[in-house]
Amino acid sequence: MKAIMLDKETYKQLLNQYISTQDEGALYRAERLTRNFIKKNILPEEIIDLHIQVLRETYPTIYEEMVYMCQFLLETMISYGLAIQENETLREKQL
Amino acid sequence: MKAIMLDKETYKQLLNQYISTQDEGALYRAERLTRNFIKKNILPEEIIDLHIQVLRETYPTIYEEMVYMCQFLLETMISYGLAIQENETLREKQL
Repeated sequence: MKAIMLDKETYKQLLNQYISTQDEGALYRAERLTRNFIKKNILPEEIIDLHIQVLRETYPTIYEEMVYMCQFLLETMISYGLAIQENETLREKQL
Repeated sequence: MKAIMLDKETYKQLLNQYISTQDEGALYRAERLTRNFIKKNILPEEIIDLHIQVLRETYPTIYEEMVYMCQFLLETMISYGLAIQENETLREKQL
C-alpha cells in the first residue's frame, strides 16, 4: 500500500470536518498532515488523486464535471511534482 | 495584476475544453501552461486559488461544499509551496 493511503481516513475525516464546520482547526491539522506527506516524498499530484477518491466516496452521485475539474488540476500539479523532484536531486548533490 | 491572472482566461478555456471533451490535448497544453507558471515562481496554492475562481465563474450555482473542498486542498498545497521555496533558496545558494 502506498504511504499516502495510510493517511486517507485522516484526510477524509479532516476534509469532512472542514466542509461541515469551516473550522480553522481542521485546516491546521491538514497542514501538519501535509508536512508529513512531504517528509515521505509524497508528491502534490498524489494529494489531488487522494482528494478525487475522497470526493467520489463523500459524494457518490457527484457530477462528473467536478471530477474532471480535479483531474485537470491533477495534471497541472504533475509539473510541480517534477520541479520538486528536480530540486530534491540538486539538494542531495549539495549534501 | 499578479502574473497568474494574465493566464486566467487560457486556464479557464483549457479547463472548459477538458470538461466538455476530456481531450488529452487540453491536458498537454495545461502542462505547458503550468511549466510557465513555475518559471514565473507561481506557487501551487496560487493555481488552486485560480481554479476556485474559475470553478465559481463556470458554475455560479455550485454547492458551497465543492468550493470548501477546494479551499481545503489549497491549504494542503501551501506546505508544498513552502517546500518549493525552501528548495529554491538552497538552489540559489548553490549557484
